[in-house]
Amino acid sequence: MISEIISVGTELCAGVTLDTNSAWLAQGLAGVGFETRRHITVGDIREDIAEAILAASKRADVVLVTGGLGPTEDDLTREGLADAMGVALVRDTAALSRLKGFFAERHLKWVEANERQAFHPVGTALLENDWGTAPGIRAPLNRARVYCLPGVPREMRLMFEERVVPDIQAHGGWPVARRLYVRALHCFGAGEAKIGDAVADLMQPGRPLTVGITASEGIITLRFFAWSASEAEADAVISRDIAEVRSRIGRLIFGEGEATLASTVGELLVGLSSTVATAESCTGGLVARMITDVPGSSRYFLRGLIPYANEAKVDLLNIEPELLARHGAVSEAVAVAMANQCRIRAGSSYAVSITGIAGPGGGTEEKPVGLVYIAVAGPRCQAARKLLYGSHLSREDIRIRSSLAALNLLRLTLLDDLPGL
Amino acid sequence: MISEIISVGTELCAGVTLDTNSAWLAQGLAGVGFETRRHITVGDIREDIAEAILAASKRADVVLVTGGLGPTEDDLTREGLADAMGVALVRDTAALSRLKGFFAERHLKWVEANERQAFHPVGTALLENDWGTAPGIRAPLNRARVYCLPGVPREMRLMFEERVVPDIQAHGGWPVARRLYVRALHCFGAGEAKIGDAVADLMQPGRPLTVGITASEGIITLRFFAWSASEAEADAVISRDIAEVRSRIGRLIFGEGEATLASTVGELLVGLSSTVATAESCTGGLVARMITDVPGSSRYFLRGLIPYANEAKVDLLNIEPELLARHGAVSEAVAVAMANQCRIRAGSSYAVSITGIAGPGGGTEEKPVGLVYIAVAGPRCQAARKLLYGSHLSREDIRIRSSLAALNLLRLTLLDDLPGL
Repeated sequence: MISEIISVGTELCAGVTLDTNSAWLAQGLAGVGFETRRHITVGDIREDIAEAILAASKRADVVLVTGGLGPTEDDLTREGLADAMGVALVRDTAALSRLKGFFAERHLKWVEANERQAFHPVGTALLENDWGTAPGIRAPLNRARVYCLPGVPREMRLMFEERVVPDIQAHGGWPVARRLYVRALHCFGAGEAKIGDAVADLMQPGRPLTVGITASEGIITLRFFAWSASEAEADAVISRDIAEVRSRIGRLIFGEGEATLASTVGELLVGLSSTVATAESCTGGLVARMITDVPGSSRYFLRGLIPYANEAKVDLLNIEPELLARHGAVSEAVAVAMANQCRIRAGSSYAVSITGIAGPGGGTEEKPVGLVYIAVAGPRCQAARKLLYGSHLSREDIRIRSSLAALNLLRLTLLDDLPGL
Repeated sequence: MISEIISVGTELCAGVTLDTNSAWLAQGLAGVGFETRRHITVGDIREDIAEAILAASKRADVVLVTGGLGPTEDDLTREGLADAMGVALVRDTAALSRLKGFFAERHLKWVEANERQAFHPVGTALLENDWGTAPGIRAPLNRARVYCLPGVPREMRLMFEERVVPDIQAHGGWPVARRLYVRALHCFGAGEAKIGDAVADLMQPGRPLTVGITASEGIITLRFFAWSASEAEADAVISRDIAEVRSRIGRLIFGEGEATLASTVGELLVGLSSTVATAESCTGGLVARMITDVPGSSRYFLRGLIPYANEAKVDLLNIEPELLARHGAVSEAVAVAMANQCRIRAGSSYAVSITGIAGPGGGTEEKPVGLVYIAVAGPRCQAARKLLYGSHLSREDIRIRSSLAALNLLRLTLLDDLPGL
């Protein structure tokens, strides 16, 4: 079954406010068997609202409209829906007394404008709103059931869960619903094209599931979408693909679903009963921040050091001034020394270090902006990598990507240290 | 002039990923005279992309399409645009060699799939992408100029600013437009309702400008919108309001436009020729990360310490074990000692400290999750604050808000230390 979502509001159209309702609703609709094929945002313009509702009602089985149901002059969803249906608005006496009751109970002053909220198009039903003033509206139009909900996120969510979902489920006109099942695999260490290439055959149309690929800050995510009437069936189809992908690019995959590089590293550390400390220069605490974003990270994270100035590198990490003078602060030798010294001073099983030039200033011909060294010291070995980010990346990007690369180097080191490997 | 924005991506349609591009683009388009009347999101479905582009090209003067230009099989914007135009795709030899050059320069392995990115519909122009691999496309269609840009936010933004805006401005077919001028003031230290109350008269309708207020992670932003054919006129109207607001809530305002609490603190430190160091426990490096997000922060940021374990507090900051035992790590006494010791050890003019319980675990009846102490030590005085965040806030929220509160305490301390005050 197909759904479409319409958001109404000039502030959304102008980009002043970010629409978070539509993404939430699309997930909610998928949970009850609807595939959202389109989101549309229009301003508080009566004709645009009417035109969007009319067009959507011809393409979709369910149309969700949010916003434009409030008491002010620019709330025009009621009028737009009436125009799309070619009917007039009527006042609902029961809704009006409910509204007045809502104000009286809360000792709020009744303002005449509120009466607008008791109107709805002829032939539609009002959906009671127990969490705010504006009731919702349910309307039959063309092939669709159209539901109009208030735009305030909290009211919208409660109205969807308590009014729309039961109504959809009670509506007998639809066959047993297929639902959308989604699983995601997250990879690090290769580009989107390379990973896409490795799974290109799985992304061909006409298979029982859809495989999508997205990239964000160096993390490549593969998503597996399967529409099915049965969770077991969807799981079987998706699991087969996931097993296949794991067999092809296993070591690049760091986790599934909500996993982050930091949470994966945390689980490996807990599994090895090990601890970690960090010493970061150019990333200024970002690696430590990522590690401690994970609840319970105090079990394995002992300390973080951010020796930004050279004196701090000497004082906190005993880096020899002579080493700094010979190789420069941004060098593999200093990265390795930082990791080793950090591990010793902190008494941790592992340590991660980063030193580099995040820019925009501070680059030279020999050591350009984007040059970063990362190192990991562990009980069995140490590892270091030179990274060189292109000038197309910002300071922020370089800091995020090199932090993720350092966590990934730690992940690979921990994997190698797992018993039995 | 009218614009429409189309986002392409099954992950956006399904609500798995939030579309932030469209809101940003709508603001950007307003800046060059376009009123965005509609946003449309479709999945990676060739027919849906084609249909959306075709319909928009009949309603708008400019159509912006983002996403679906990558190298993989599910990137179908090129095909959708070609279908909407009724033409075939051709390969651009110059674009192909640019692409190969991009990979060679970065020592990346060339994968055949990347070749897709050198194709575009007959009769369209490619827009060079200096910040990633996929070039954009500019196409004439019905009444519109259609621009297709990559979906990666950073690339999309740079392509819009460097390719689309100059092209729009060079295109002579449009009359002189009224533009939207926007300025923003950022505040910290009071709630949205209180600040809204202080400026309620300025938010009434019917004034020559619109004043809006938004809240995000404790930062309250006032935005002043004026449509005008002249920058000077808009600036005069907005500046009058800004002066009025500053006279009412001056000390709550930390900056304008792109300013952050960290950049404001950085400017104050540079003005005072002073330096700073940080010692953070529950925020795990977030304050240091915020400070070092600012380019050039190495001029004043000396070091950051993240003594997560108690032993690290003793070792790195000489916090007396007896003090820890008596007051607990989360206490005003320990926060103050951390700031003072950090300042002494780092040799910095100022130091900031944070210790608290970010949750979800670790709370007790006496010291619940959400209890945080912040402190600042300076050459003339020290300051400390107890913060208590409600249970509706997540670990992430508590960490961000307490980091911002610590930076704000440092800002107020620096303001007091400015000469002549």
